[in-house]
Amino acid sequence: MRGINRQITLAVRPVGFPRISDFNLSYSPLRSLVAGEVLVRSVYLSLDPYMRLRMNAVCAGAQPIALGEVMVGGAVAVVVESADPGLRAGDTVEGMLGWQEHALVRGRTLRKLDLRVAPMSTALGLLGMPGLTAYFGLLDAGEPSRGETVVVSGAAGAVGMVAGQIARIEGCRVVGVAGSEIDVSWLHTELGFDDALSYESAADIDRQLAASCPDGIDVYFDTVGGALTDAVLRQLNPGARVVVCAQTSQYNLERAETGPRWLVALVDKRAKLEGFEVSRCAARFPAARRKLGRWLRQGRLKYREEVAHGLEAAPQAFIHMLEGKNQGKQLVRLSESLGAAA
Amino acid sequence: MRGINRQITLAVRPVGFPRISDFNLSYSPLRSLVAGEVLVRSVYLSLDPYMRLRMNAVCAGAQPIALGEVMVGGAVAVVVESADPGLRAGDTVEGMLGWQEHALVRGRTLRKLDLRVAPMSTALGLLGMPGLTAYFGLLDAGEPSRGETVVVSGAAGAVGMVAGQIARIEGCRVVGVAGSEIDVSWLHTELGFDDALSYESAADIDRQLAASCPDGIDVYFDTVGGALTDAVLRQLNPGARVVVCAQTSQYNLERAETGPRWLVALVDKRAKLEGFEVSRCAARFPAARRKLGRWLRQGRLKYREEVAHGLEAAPQAFIHMLEGKNQGKQLVRLSESLGAAA
Repeated sequence: MRGINRQITLAVRPVGFPRISDFNLSYSPLRSLVAGEVLVRSVYLSLDPYMRLRMNAVCAGAQPIALGEVMVGGAVAVVVESADPGLRAGDTVEGMLGWQEHALVRGRTLRKLDLRVAPMSTALGLLGMPGLTAYFGLLDAGEPSRGETVVVSGAAGAVGMVAGQIARIEGCRVVGVAGSEIDVSWLHTELGFDDALSYESAADIDRQLAASCPDGIDVYFDTVGGALTDAVLRQLNPGARVVVCAQTSQYNLERAETGPRWLVALVDKRAKLEGFEVSRCAARFPAARRKLGRWLRQGRLKYREEVAHGLEAAPQAFIHMLEGKNQGKQLVRLSESLGAAA
Repeated sequence: MRGINRQITLAVRPVGFPRISDFNLSYSPLRSLVAGEVLVRSVYLSLDPYMRLRMNAVCAGAQPIALGEVMVGGAVAVVVESADPGLRAGDTVEGMLGWQEHALVRGRTLRKLDLRVAPMSTALGLLGMPGLTAYFGLLDAGEPSRGETVVVSGAAGAVGMVAGQIARIEGCRVVGVAGSEIDVSWLHTELGFDDALSYESAADIDRQLAASCPDGIDVYFDTVGGALTDAVLRQLNPGARVVVCAQTSQYNLERAETGPRWLVALVDKRAKLEGFEVSRCAARFPAARRKLGRWLRQGRLKYREEVAHGLEAAPQAFIHMLEGKNQGKQLVRLSESLGAAA
């Protein structure tokens, strides 16, 4: 017996938006390490929209979280005890550690962080899955060229903010669509997007997009979906590329939505559309992280984080994020004393 | 004054399925040739679903046919008189000549046919735009690999029949979906598809597809769209490719259809979807025609044609084709005496 670990587990499969009562705070004993394992104490938990899909009984392309199981997710942690020769106590690591204060995992599933490169929280954002999804999704699948118009939905979110900034670096005209006027103002003033607009109603968005994209749309980087995506597709240029990384507007529906059929338009426009999932680019993650880190240190990439405090805050912060109320990458900070042992 | 040309012109923009009264039989005088032009007399007119889109007031990606204007379309013709040094009377040519008995066009817009290679009508089917769309759409955008499952919608149509047979040549398991039991039987017995099924109702198609594609679907070659496409998308394998060449189920709707939103599934499946239009492959048409012609002569590619007779028959044959009642590539034969002068 090594002490008690506190965890957030899935209590009830949500219908529509999750509720606090869909989660449990659970206590679990920590066993001793075997060779190759490490005990870590998490510092930051990442909260991401895909987790909502994993709460369903059926989750295409991934394993659903079982009832009673710890919520999945990435985290940054400090090694407390190690039986892996590649890691030692005090090292800072990133991995799929779940919504819990401690985790006992095989050391080789972790990535050791160099804190001189960037703040540790960025391992879950700009230099983590969101940033890599933006980098490879935009550059590989979106293939933007200088002077083209790139529209990013969810542009103030963890993925969208990076995608839009990379499109700017590539010399594109970048139009961000975000959920609130605060986000729009931030995209304009802090991130230097060429234009940004708030998505209020499907009726108005056609006019707003046309005004923001007078030369049509060449690349659409989509994390939101729904009627916004319908509107963007109506304004694609011939040969346009659509990169679909997420569809957050559809994740909390009690009943699946219908929408206009738009494949005819995709034929007319000779457009390509790709459902993009970043893991296929894993071999190129180190090079991409170096590039993203350099842009970050040069001030060419900026980011914003919203941090909730304490494991108990995770469910509410998660719901808050699903409602689009967070400002930037949503994190949960678990501990104030970084280097201490358990 | 060189005589009178008979033409089918657009009288009224159709709402829903075209009616005979949407077309006019018009008479137009033929003027003299200027340098570079040729006068041709058409032998076969091609009737294709895309023409329905060109009858609308707005037609993305192409010019609408104006009211009173000759219906667009490809045709095979015989040169009657030539002021182009590259062509002479008696040559057989293919080009965008429209629904008319004669055409006066620049010689360089025509492709001279070698009748030793294949019957002239194939220049509008297997060795024409339909065959090339199937060839490049399937191979370039679909990227089929040996052993994969390829589903073709509109499988007994001019494009689908070629796409399915090429997939067979490439060593794939090919399942064709067609509109009638007669077509299904033909795909089974004559074309050697691994399986073929008739698309009757959206409710039943899920079960039928699952039975025909026990290993899931790797490539979907779509010319039909609608609820059939929804059903196929539900059974895509990870990494699947969807090639959309046409959406014939949507061309004659009085009001645009809605359907389930399925982009979430495309992300989960990491699937690619491409709106494919063959003109971008124009530089590779000659090589593709050589390959298709070789497969034809080897008996590895088969085709079927339905021929209506006389210019006046074109509107009814077109409607018949839009209703899915034709058996194979729909043509109109204009003349019985091939080599004669006007």
